[in-house]
Amino acid sequence: MCELLGMSANTPTDLRFSFTALSKRGGETGPHRDGWGVCFYEGKGVRSFHDPSQCANSELAKFIKNYPIKSEVAIAHIRKANRGAVKLENTHPFTRILWGKIWVFAHNGQLKGVKKLKLNYYKPVGTTDSEYAFCWIMDNLRERFKTRPSASRLNKAIGDLMAELRKLGVFNALLSSGDDLYASCSKNLVYITRKAPFGEAVLIDEDLRVDFAHETTPNDIVTIVATHPLTKNEEWTRISHDSFIVFKQGLRV
Amino acid sequence: MCELLGMSANTPTDLRFSFTALSKRGGETGPHRDGWGVCFYEGKGVRSFHDPSQCANSELAKFIKNYPIKSEVAIAHIRKANRGAVKLENTHPFTRILWGKIWVFAHNGQLKGVKKLKLNYYKPVGTTDSEYAFCWIMDNLRERFKTRPSASRLNKAIGDLMAELRKLGVFNALLSSGDDLYASCSKNLVYITRKAPFGEAVLIDEDLRVDFAHETTPNDIVTIVATHPLTKNEEWTRISHDSFIVFKQGLRV
Repeated sequence: MCELLGMSANTPTDLRFSFTALSKRGGETGPHRDGWGVCFYEGKGVRSFHDPSQCANSELAKFIKNYPIKSEVAIAHIRKANRGAVKLENTHPFTRILWGKIWVFAHNGQLKGVKKLKLNYYKPVGTTDSEYAFCWIMDNLRERFKTRPSASRLNKAIGDLMAELRKLGVFNALLSSGDDLYASCSKNLVYITRKAPFGEAVLIDEDLRVDFAHETTPNDIVTIVATHPLTKNEEWTRISHDSFIVFKQGLRV
Repeated sequence: MCELLGMSANTPTDLRFSFTALSKRGGETGPHRDGWGVCFYEGKGVRSFHDPSQCANSELAKFIKNYPIKSEVAIAHIRKANRGAVKLENTHPFTRILWGKIWVFAHNGQLKGVKKLKLNYYKPVGTTDSEYAFCWIMDNLRERFKTRPSASRLNKAIGDLMAELRKLGVFNALLSSGDDLYASCSKNLVYITRKAPFGEAVLIDEDLRVDFAHETTPNDIVTIVATHPLTKNEEWTRISHDSFIVFKQGLRV
């Protein structure tokens, strides 16, 4: 299995505190040694970093932990391979372009028979179930909508497609095109929404704490979604089993 | 205008020496301050780094100059913006997926009326002429070939499409899907092929030299393509004006 991390915020926000926790689980406090990746939206562009080795001692991950990148939406993943060899092309998050926007996707779980689903437009580069499932979502959205539909129609369509995939096994997944953050939960996904009054947060996996009151303005709203809680002194909300939720600018829709 | 850098090699090769020269031109020894990017193929995957700020003093570029990434094909670009704002989504190289392979593209020049060309499948994310031209190439290849054709048919098709684009202005460009490196030259493009017996090379833009005899095996063949020569003690071949050439595993086809 793998671990996911996502962020949705109403202002460009630094992910380093949460990414530091996730990266420790990539081979040190967790067994997810088979690669990692993170995508940060910046305007319509995306900064992507991928490494098919363990995150905990990756030089590239160390660079990211020291380099402030601010985004409203980010998705990260640490991998413990089940389907698909440990290779760069099998390292999440995956990206595709639809309606002139870059879509980013990461997945935790296994899907039985997903590769029997038909793909017309989007083809996978690697051999994971996950990338195949992502291509299938993109294919269906493209087929159904020539241009980007309203947010409510899009949310409904993505929710329905993700529900189909949950029938094939475990489909904890994060998806975005830079605005809304879509989350599918089969069973392990939690989130926390931080807003004023901000307080201190303390990581579980590393002796690191941050006082968000010093890092934010009173208007900031930031939600972090993760496979398991990342901090020990905050209350994380468990997302219901077999459900789909959407975050917009830091708030649950 | 901008500067291009490409590598084609028959063995995974470190680009850092050449990238160091290019990065200096990104705001220090050259005026290309409006962003930079580099894509390294690794198997079927690609490591991509982009920054919409000047390369010469970029922390991310500094990291890459110290981090050995070995590829058989790599494409890099430093930007001096003409069309399209200085933003991440307008920063070359651009990538798209076709026939289950990741394609990487970078361009130097301006194309008049390119946005009047019809696009069916691939849409740009940013606003550059360059990304639009790349989408048009991908669109035409996809339209023409359901699956990847033979190398000779593909070379011919890409050569023809690039010749069409050269009619619209200046189209110095590098394109690859990880095996062959395709180069279009309107007027400024040079290359050098290094093979045994390897010798010393000295950069023009920085006091840096490397003795490739210590870095290579006798079977290695590496071609570097660039807008202008990067070293001062080697003989670079000038690519003919208005031409298209292909490199495979370090050698000109």
